[in-house]
Amino acid sequence: MKYIRYSCDGKASYGILDGETIKEIAGGLLGTRSETGKTTSLRNVRLLCPCEPTKILAVGWNYQSHISTRKPPSNPEIFFVPPSALLPQGEDIVLPPGASNVHYEGELVVVIGKETRQVTVAEAEENILGFTCGNDVSEREWQKNDLQWWRAKGSDTFAPMGPAIVTGFDWRHGRVETRVNGSVVQEGEFREMLFNPPAIISYASQYVTLLPGDIIYTGTPGTTAAIKAGDQVEVNIPGIGVLRNKVAAK
Amino acid sequence: MKYIRYSCDGKASYGILDGETIKEIAGGLLGTRSETGKTTSLRNVRLLCPCEPTKILAVGWNYQSHISTRKPPSNPEIFFVPPSALLPQGEDIVLPPGASNVHYEGELVVVIGKETRQVTVAEAEENILGFTCGNDVSEREWQKNDLQWWRAKGSDTFAPMGPAIVTGFDWRHGRVETRVNGSVVQEGEFREMLFNPPAIISYASQYVTLLPGDIIYTGTPGTTAAIKAGDQVEVNIPGIGVLRNKVAAK
Repeated sequence: MKYIRYSCDGKASYGILDGETIKEIAGGLLGTRSETGKTTSLRNVRLLCPCEPTKILAVGWNYQSHISTRKPPSNPEIFFVPPSALLPQGEDIVLPPGASNVHYEGELVVVIGKETRQVTVAEAEENILGFTCGNDVSEREWQKNDLQWWRAKGSDTFAPMGPAIVTGFDWRHGRVETRVNGSVVQEGEFREMLFNPPAIISYASQYVTLLPGDIIYTGTPGTTAAIKAGDQVEVNIPGIGVLRNKVAAK
Repeated sequence: MKYIRYSCDGKASYGILDGETIKEIAGGLLGTRSETGKTTSLRNVRLLCPCEPTKILAVGWNYQSHISTRKPPSNPEIFFVPPSALLPQGEDIVLPPGASNVHYEGELVVVIGKETRQVTVAEAEENILGFTCGNDVSEREWQKNDLQWWRAKGSDTFAPMGPAIVTGFDWRHGRVETRVNGSVVQEGEFREMLFNPPAIISYASQYVTLLPGDIIYTGTPGTTAAIKAGDQVEVNIPGIGVLRNKVAAK
């Protein structure tokens, strides 16, 4: 099932995406998700981020191909991104004042389905609602020079996610591909993750209670490069969809 | 004016605290704040965190007395704490699994009153709703050894705040004192901050849009020490109140 959130005639709704048709659901993503009977076309709406997280976790250094010859971490290396950084499908990544080296990071994003507190790895999978695409946009100079990564990873528009949350997605056989202006610049298979989604969830939940709708960016594979105003970035996860955003100067 | 949020007969409300009397207000802290005419006694309620932030910022290294001989940072050094870490007046700070060196950090907390985006230092003060007390509880081993401070500062119950939000508080002449089991262990005056509240707000808002109800922990003065199960920690800011929490083992 593909769940989206969208704006139509000034009203925000959740819906099920069936080809180009949206079937509106009542009660939101975390409620009963029963169809209201109202349908509309994807052409008539503006997509919003497909959920409304109270917090966003992200994992650094989660692919050997990304950390190169560095020793793999002994635990998932987690950080927080604020909800104010979220960006839906089709809206612009805006380069903040003073940013000089902003990179894409195509990633698989996990969406939490229920309150998750100190679960085991075996239990963690049941707490996943679904998956979507994410771009963990990163300013490399700030990442290197600030004490913490707050603005390097958390500036407004630095957390594109979407277009849809897909349930039952077989991440074990999935892959991500990032494209800039149509050229593939990054590729990875999710089985290469140093810590897979259930392992990340179990570890994080020992310390931090995850709530329904909270999301986790699971890390980026391979190498990344700078993007500039005018570029189009696409994060393609076959089986989920393509997250597409342009880059704009301030 | 002192604003609180409280639970009474299973219902959460906002109110104005007048001595021991609570005057219920309609529309929440960010609405009209008009009195409903309903009053109750402070004795009959359980205090909740006095606001419901969508994000929590905190500032590290903001007093020379805390960073000792280290060079002061050239900009506020910000990090994020998730809302799941919030803890109201009177509830227990719970030591997470594996924590071995958990410290108190008494601090002034700023509450944002309106949407704040790329404001100047001069404009920033108008965007402050009020102030409260905070304890930026910190696990020092994790702070030193993890890549980022997510669990060192963001574990469940690590962000005590309250008891009330005070408007019109004269922070320029204010001070904070932390007590453990009644003994003063930390003292500082807010004029010693390397970056004061308007400077922090202006800087943060260049990158991250602050929303009404969002809060900022402004950093801790002096040195800190470990707390253990059974300890009582009090953060006292004359003119605001005393934030009081016990420490519990997991």
